[in-house]
Amino acid sequence: MRDRLIKACRRQRTDTRPIWLMRQAGRYLPEYRKIRERYDVMTICRTPELAAMVSSLPVELFEVDAAVIFADIMLPLESLGVRFRLEDGVGPVVADRISSLDQVRSLSSFEPSRLSFVFDAIKETRRLLNDSVPVIGFSGGPFTLASYLIEGGPSRDFARTKGVMFGRGRVWTELMERLSEMASAYLQGQARAGAKVLQLFDSWVGSLNEAEYREYVLPYSRAVIRKASETGVPLIHFGVDTAAILECMAEAGGDVIGVDWRVNIDEAWRRVGHDRGIQGNLDPAVLLSETATIRRHAEDVLRRTAGFPGHIFNLGHGVLPNTPPENVKELVEYVHVKGAT
Amino acid sequence: MRDRLIKACRRQRTDTRPIWLMRQAGRYLPEYRKIRERYDVMTICRTPELAAMVSSLPVELFEVDAAVIFADIMLPLESLGVRFRLEDGVGPVVADRISSLDQVRSLSSFEPSRLSFVFDAIKETRRLLNDSVPVIGFSGGPFTLASYLIEGGPSRDFARTKGVMFGRGRVWTELMERLSEMASAYLQGQARAGAKVLQLFDSWVGSLNEAEYREYVLPYSRAVIRKASETGVPLIHFGVDTAAILECMAEAGGDVIGVDWRVNIDEAWRRVGHDRGIQGNLDPAVLLSETATIRRHAEDVLRRTAGFPGHIFNLGHGVLPNTPPENVKELVEYVHVKGAT
Repeated sequence: MRDRLIKACRRQRTDTRPIWLMRQAGRYLPEYRKIRERYDVMTICRTPELAAMVSSLPVELFEVDAAVIFADIMLPLESLGVRFRLEDGVGPVVADRISSLDQVRSLSSFEPSRLSFVFDAIKETRRLLNDSVPVIGFSGGPFTLASYLIEGGPSRDFARTKGVMFGRGRVWTELMERLSEMASAYLQGQARAGAKVLQLFDSWVGSLNEAEYREYVLPYSRAVIRKASETGVPLIHFGVDTAAILECMAEAGGDVIGVDWRVNIDEAWRRVGHDRGIQGNLDPAVLLSETATIRRHAEDVLRRTAGFPGHIFNLGHGVLPNTPPENVKELVEYVHVKGAT
Repeated sequence: MRDRLIKACRRQRTDTRPIWLMRQAGRYLPEYRKIRERYDVMTICRTPELAAMVSSLPVELFEVDAAVIFADIMLPLESLGVRFRLEDGVGPVVADRISSLDQVRSLSSFEPSRLSFVFDAIKETRRLLNDSVPVIGFSGGPFTLASYLIEGGPSRDFARTKGVMFGRGRVWTELMERLSEMASAYLQGQARAGAKVLQLFDSWVGSLNEAEYREYVLPYSRAVIRKASETGVPLIHFGVDTAAILECMAEAGGDVIGVDWRVNIDEAWRRVGHDRGIQGNLDPAVLLSETATIRRHAEDVLRRTAGFPGHIFNLGHGVLPNTPPENVKELVEYVHVKGAT
């Protein structure tokens, strides 16, 4: 197995810089769009052979250092009885927004066996790739999941979520407890199925400030990470827009902290401490540019992270849908060549 | 005139903490919604009597320390020949997205006299309020305006904008030059019409990192601020989500730097330097909560900004549409009582 990603998570020296990209198996790939012509996202997620095929694509095409399992962060919520649909260009739309304690209490208890298709997809991806690279499993973070449930979908201002958070104690705490238990069990299940690295995607947590994160989120994220880490599988803790809360996120846990492009990654790494790894942080929009621009920005990330073990090259958020695939190929090659230590 | 806002901009001591709120004259007010039943936003903007009436509402209702002129940041673009409409719940939608140098060069030159209705609205607001508080004039920042023109409307990832920014030199530089000239002339016109404080709203500049801001935005924002400041009117330089670029924004200029709720305002102030004022930064979502929560969060902002002259109390972004007006009243009273030095 090409294990430089796992080594970097453990802050061991690697032959070159490991790289994978969030949403590396997505709409920007013609091979993916072809599969999507015949199957919707949920069908792909629920069919291990299809999910594995999609998850493997970027490894085969670009030699990235990991496959990330093709799944949607809403999937495990289905087993709690949440009904939602994925709308193209919008995201998840939840049928019944959560606003009351009764609704929280009427959620079913999480049953990992109902996510067996994800675990099977992990096994199938490993088989398909002959264990040539690690498979990354992931879960949404409790705040991010709560925000979808309370807003009913994506949000700009998270007004409802914060309304519940600030205002009605037990709705928030019981919901966050339920989601934390779910996320940790889901991550554990993925580790048991053979995921060699885990990522907690708390994508929208950057809408909070330090005090808010500390009071309303940190205890739950910490519980998730602690339980998931009992598996011995290293965990990457990622959020977008987290310049103001990096220290708190690190306090919640994670072997590696994932940061977006807004922060200077060297400063971010200093702030979270070199006793952890750091992941990131090329601006995804850079991949819409020409080779020279891509190289210049990638070189900057490599330079800022040189000298310490534990950097995982990634974008600051997911690959944009209109990214030319050849630019991804170019980036991966460049990072592997220039990142050789 | 109750001039504590102007004094704070100049870092002079004030009797109590000045407060105004971005979007204080907006959809959350039943009085505003009533006017909106009869007139659309553009009609209100273009009718000085209506714009003045709306601008004055929060001063009359809540005794905030300034009226901010009711206008849309897209208004001056109309005089460049840009066609757009304001869509409820979406924002501005531009008819022809800008992507080519020809399009940039075919923009008309900015003619301040075509914005006379804004200048008249400022005069009318002063008259209506008997000059009891200063009127704030504002303009969108060059980056934010460019993003609307290039994306064709609001954006999550600013992919097109950054594509132009990274990729095609003259499209970006000429567009930014045009927008800078426009913004500075527009701000100067508002100052001449009697605005006593100006704000440069570069709302979306927080989608950039330090290097990007420095290379592609800073020179233009600096030019705008320098020219607008020739009027002698103090200027507030505001952006959302700017935790990673605060020093650069301060470098671009502004007597006061406006920050959102994500940053701790005491740290933000230290970073931009106490030789400037700071504006902010209550999370707008806090105003959806109960009095005790509002007071607790407001007290925290007051505490973090105590001891230095030059703090202007505000939200970290605009008032949310579902904010109860009585909570705004409560906040203003609380800040005036607790902020007395």
